[in-house]
Amino acid sequence: MDDSVLPSIPAEPAVTAADLAASWAAVREHGPLVQCLTNIVAAPLTANVLLAAGAAPAMVDNAHEARGFAAAASGVLVNLGTPYDDTTAAMREAVAGAGDAGTPWVLDPVAVGGLPWRTAVARELLALAAPGAGGRGADSVDSPADALVVARRLAREHGCVVAISGEVDHLTDGERVLRLANGHAWMTKVTGVGCALGALVAACAAVTDDALTAAGAATAALTVAAERAAAVTEGPGTFAARLLDELSTLHPDRLAAQVALS
Amino acid sequence: MDDSVLPSIPAEPAVTAADLAASWAAVREHGPLVQCLTNIVAAPLTANVLLAAGAAPAMVDNAHEARGFAAAASGVLVNLGTPYDDTTAAMREAVAGAGDAGTPWVLDPVAVGGLPWRTAVARELLALAAPGAGGRGADSVDSPADALVVARRLAREHGCVVAISGEVDHLTDGERVLRLANGHAWMTKVTGVGCALGALVAACAAVTDDALTAAGAATAALTVAAERAAAVTEGPGTFAARLLDELSTLHPDRLAAQVALS
Amino acid sequence: MDDSVLPSIPAEPAVTAADLAASWAAVREHGPLVQCLTNIVAAPLTANVLLAAGAAPAMVDNAHEARGFAAAASGVLVNLGTPYDDTTAAMREAVAGAGDAGTPWVLDPVAVGGLPWRTAVARELLALAAPGAGGRGADSVDSPADALVVARRLAREHGCVVAISGEVDHLTDGERVLRLANGHAWMTKVTGVGCALGALVAACAAVTDDALTAAGAATAALTVAAERAAAVTEGPGTFAARLLDELSTLHPDRLAAQVALS
Repeated sequence: MDDSVLPSIPAEPAVTAADLAASWAAVREHGPLVQCLTNIVAAPLTANVLLAAGAAPAMVDNAHEARGFAAAASGVLVNLGTPYDDTTAAMREAVAGAGDAGTPWVLDPVAVGGLPWRTAVARELLALAAPGAGGRGADSVDSPADALVVARRLAREHGCVVAISGEVDHLTDGERVLRLANGHAWMTKVTGVGCALGALVAACAAVTDDALTAAGAATAALTVAAERAAAVTEGPGTFAARLLDELSTLHPDRLAAQVALS
Repeated sequence: MDDSVLPSIPAEPAVTAADLAASWAAVREHGPLVQCLTNIVAAPLTANVLLAAGAAPAMVDNAHEARGFAAAASGVLVNLGTPYDDTTAAMREAVAGAGDAGTPWVLDPVAVGGLPWRTAVARELLALAAPGAGGRGADSVDSPADALVVARRLAREHGCVVAISGEVDHLTDGERVLRLANGHAWMTKVTGVGCALGALVAACAAVTDDALTAAGAATAALTVAAERAAAVTEGPGTFAARLLDELSTLHPDRLAAQVALS
Repeated sequence: MDDSVLPSIPAEPAVTAADLAASWAAVREHGPLVQCLTNIVAAPLTANVLLAAGAAPAMVDNAHEARGFAAAASGVLVNLGTPYDDTTAAMREAVAGAGDAGTPWVLDPVAVGGLPWRTAVARELLALAAPGAGGRGADSVDSPADALVVARRLAREHGCVVAISGEVDHLTDGERVLRLANGHAWMTKVTGVGCALGALVAACAAVTDDALTAAGAATAALTVAAERAAAVTEGPGTFAARLLDELSTLHPDRLAAQVALS
């Protein structure tokens, strides 16, 4: 894919391990209130991941309350895993409310691209977010080489950070690119882990000025905790429980020491 | 806050540990059918807590079936965690059906007070419950000293029991006040534990004449089980799994021996 | 109950342990995409069971996307645990899409029979499924002796396999009857295990020509894994986590060796 219109990626690391640790520490300290409009599968794990991080989850996902709550919340997650007419109406309200108040928000476009209806919903949500209004997107583009070029373009177009998950996670704000190589295969065998990561990005973004740092901190925390959890469990079921234990005790210094950043 | 209009709280313990144990034993023996209209986050844990208690959960939360089912169920939980237009319509039907048949029911007004729409829904549900029709509310008032005065007034106004959760849980029917000092901080780090407690109150109320005793038995069972679970686990994830194990084997005698009641 | 109109059950075993193991191995190998339209209680466990099996869950349960997705999916689960107007509309679309494309699908009629509205929904869904279009039903009839006669009639009427769960699970396609005697009582103490089994049947049916073999393989896998999980845990909470571990490592040879088939 042609990336000639994109500027070259800076040679120095975009963000340091200490920056990620500081963002994680800020979540611990401030306990941001994160509004989640998410799917029926990932909702329990998402709330539990936020609680383990020290954040305060609030699943306010009806159209009557979503806008006002988003204006008051510290961060907002909009996840398109199981969208319905009533919850997508709430998502529009939440994104508008986040725009009103400058609340950082995360879009997790589950299966967008493959399914036309929710793709239209995602486009509409992104259009609602005025540039510079604090909107921050996380996308899950299909895969390898070309994905980064697409991600950088999307990030520049929408003024947000785009995340590509994989064995190495890639995060970009269009200019800078952050690579994180932690995690474990069982993360893909527990439903909702990726969705919970989106909520954790919203928590970090709520307390961190730089959106790329926030996305990196959330990714580092969850993947470092996952490595530790996988080391002492026997499969995806016990791993999922232990992941919450490890996340709840993950010290910022250990995050900084264990994150595989480039 | 002025409590001069309230009668003085009786000096003797409102309910004994043996009363709580008897209520818990009755749940074990009779396995009450508890209809739950609850939120998408807490639904799985709520059903699992009821199963561990020996009760039979039934998540009948559509407007077509809610009224008839509530009339036939042993108890009903209405939880306002993630209300939608269709599920609040079902809640109205369920409360009406519970009123028709005298089925005891519990209202868990999650975030009521802070959010106007669901506050109006909660008021409407309480208005549907005719005094003396067996309606029993559990509320989560903000916090400390004044909360008990508010709780006692609410309890008298609606003819129900009101619960205030905290390090020490306070339960009142307006006259008597029951204090329980069991539990563990991880209960607040696992999503849905408070919501599941509401369902357990409905289960106990289904098999217990005195509503204050029922609320106390449910609170005692969950918090005593939580202390035991926390003692052998390492964080909120493994705690949540073990909590179900402990609840499922909690003998009424052990509940009576371990409950910290005043 | 009069079974005089039914043919006698063949004396030889309907399906062999090796047949079941081959079906399970095919799930592992092909990782079928299973669309789930299920309830808010069982959704997380259902997705996790499919992931542990090596299948790919997709919870596409809105009316805008359900039909197209069902035509492209490998298998479809329709579970009536918490039906709403919008999700039952999606179920009709999904069943129609499965019919269009010949995608095998499973109906789990939770509480059908007892509740008139969902009973009508279930009848409508079965009517949508043209005979021979690949529709496969799993039913949960009340209990013992007569249930098998009813199940055989239903299976013949709808051209599908009907499953009756119990200490011994009975599966029939109207002619043949398969009995499996594995499992553990804790399976009934964890919410969603039965619902997850329906999804697993859809996964096996996606990669297995014979529907009775598919239903048997799914039942054998989950119940054999449950026996192993129960042996190393202390109650339903830790059992639920470990069940996923055991399922994820269950080798087809071990399934064949441990299944109690008759």
